[in-house]
Amino acid sequence: MQKIDLAIIGSGPAGITAGIYALRRNLSIRVFESEAVGGQTAKAVWMENYPGFTRLTGFELMQKMSGHLKMLGVEIEEANAVKKIAKIGNEFELELEDGSKALAKTVLLATGTENKKLNLPGEKELYGRGVSYCANCDGPFCKGKRVAIIGGGNSGVTNALYLSETASKAFLVEFTPELNCDEVYLPLIKKQKNLEVLKNTQVIEVLGKEKVEGIKIKDRKTGKERIIALEGVFFYVGLSPRNELAKQLFGAEIDSKGFVKIDEHMMTTVKGFFAAGDITGNLAQTIWAAAEGAKAALEAYKYVKGILK
Amino acid sequence: MQKIDLAIIGSGPAGITAGIYALRRNLSIRVFESEAVGGQTAKAVWMENYPGFTRLTGFELMQKMSGHLKMLGVEIEEANAVKKIAKIGNEFELELEDGSKALAKTVLLATGTENKKLNLPGEKELYGRGVSYCANCDGPFCKGKRVAIIGGGNSGVTNALYLSETASKAFLVEFTPELNCDEVYLPLIKKQKNLEVLKNTQVIEVLGKEKVEGIKIKDRKTGKERIIALEGVFFYVGLSPRNELAKQLFGAEIDSKGFVKIDEHMMTTVKGFFAAGDITGNLAQTIWAAAEGAKAALEAYKYVKGILK
Repeated sequence: MQKIDLAIIGSGPAGITAGIYALRRNLSIRVFESEAVGGQTAKAVWMENYPGFTRLTGFELMQKMSGHLKMLGVEIEEANAVKKIAKIGNEFELELEDGSKALAKTVLLATGTENKKLNLPGEKELYGRGVSYCANCDGPFCKGKRVAIIGGGNSGVTNALYLSETASKAFLVEFTPELNCDEVYLPLIKKQKNLEVLKNTQVIEVLGKEKVEGIKIKDRKTGKERIIALEGVFFYVGLSPRNELAKQLFGAEIDSKGFVKIDEHMMTTVKGFFAAGDITGNLAQTIWAAAEGAKAALEAYKYVKGILK
Repeated sequence: MQKIDLAIIGSGPAGITAGIYALRRNLSIRVFESEAVGGQTAKAVWMENYPGFTRLTGFELMQKMSGHLKMLGVEIEEANAVKKIAKIGNEFELELEDGSKALAKTVLLATGTENKKLNLPGEKELYGRGVSYCANCDGPFCKGKRVAIIGGGNSGVTNALYLSETASKAFLVEFTPELNCDEVYLPLIKKQKNLEVLKNTQVIEVLGKEKVEGIKIKDRKTGKERIIALEGVFFYVGLSPRNELAKQLFGAEIDSKGFVKIDEHMMTTVKGFFAAGDITGNLAQTIWAAAEGAKAALEAYKYVKGILK
């Protein structure tokens, strides 16, 4: 079994940037991805705040980043998840989905976050049949239909703007009394005539048998409940750290919100086991995750060379 | 005098990214630059590690970033340095080079670093007459000539590779026994036949009357001194934080190396006075500086809105 210097788990901006930096330091690396390349960024409808690119889709940006990595000689191993990790002496043994094993001197956990679920009645049952966590993926099926977007942060709002372009009618449902998005979006929401904003509103249930037929909501001020008939519900109510590998296999310290603790060298409480990107609970922005990836790779380099203990 | 939400001092990756993020939050901003747009990044010969762009010049990258800012409605005020800052109540009054004043609720110090000087005999006297701190700026004058590059870190090495492409002969002089650059450059240096590496070597003096005629160097192992005849000397021996504004006018805390101290909100020890990028002494990489700029802008937004005290 060939030993590599650095195993990168996850191919969002943190994982890919770490790969770019590691390769420029001549480390041998592999990049494992359990789902699709690009992490949360690839799901963003539009990216307008990654400096240097005024406007492109999240998918396009992550294609550019993975292309950058590929040009340096490494292809992301898509759908080759790391199933298990064990630390044997100073090294890490990884069991991969394809049945093989990998041996690594250092590991970077860059698994990011996944969309939170509200665990409403009907939410799980109707997932894939009208319930979705990715407008980019499932939005095209909602052309000419009525949809609801749950969550008034940046993700919810941008996806509501996107979905309302083709939906016959869209509802943006926010639990708190005000939207929590960038101000820049507020006039755009007003302009979108078929987009109705319901603030201070709680979603109670997703309705439907074979597929989504509606949602039951409650006005949190008046307590009044009502049903909205629709065909699609998109949840953007926050993110959960994907910390399973750290949690189950290492005893790497995790904070109360599920984020993996790191020190000033991006190292977890397990020596040689680094973390970067959204999984660390810092600013959940593409540019920030990429920066953490860069730093983690440089610290892993020092660890491999014996400079960092 | 119109009051703005955020005055950004410096237009490197930190300052520009802060501007992009602040504008997307609808803050009113101005961006002041005492020299040229782009900071240290704009001086980089080639950028190959900013994720998404496989290869472009530092100048090109910073043109893209400043174009990104301009598209959002703000042009960098070049050659309009902030000469003086005073905090009056909760606000900041800035005296500008053009003679006018600006009033701001928050200030972001993103002044970065400047190239360190060795203060050798002849270094200051012959500056601009063969002594340079920017190969990108002065390299074209050295075509077909003999040059030396002082410093074997990434900056020195990449600039040595660049200069040796057109120089008749180039010397790369490193004080320590080994080069401190990314491994990826080592084979490139070997391939460049007219580039001679002098390790463990100290530069004693820059020689010349009207212009540079040579350098005096000392082999640190044998103690032997010798003179190399050449026409250009490029110094890449580290960076000094440009902390004058923080130092003279605020009493914002500065560490022993001259970097400005910030808390987890990117705020200095002066309320409402933030810092981001190389001036904070963190990872001196474009991607990192940009990330700090993004975070600082979001924290300044919270401060302006009264969420962050």
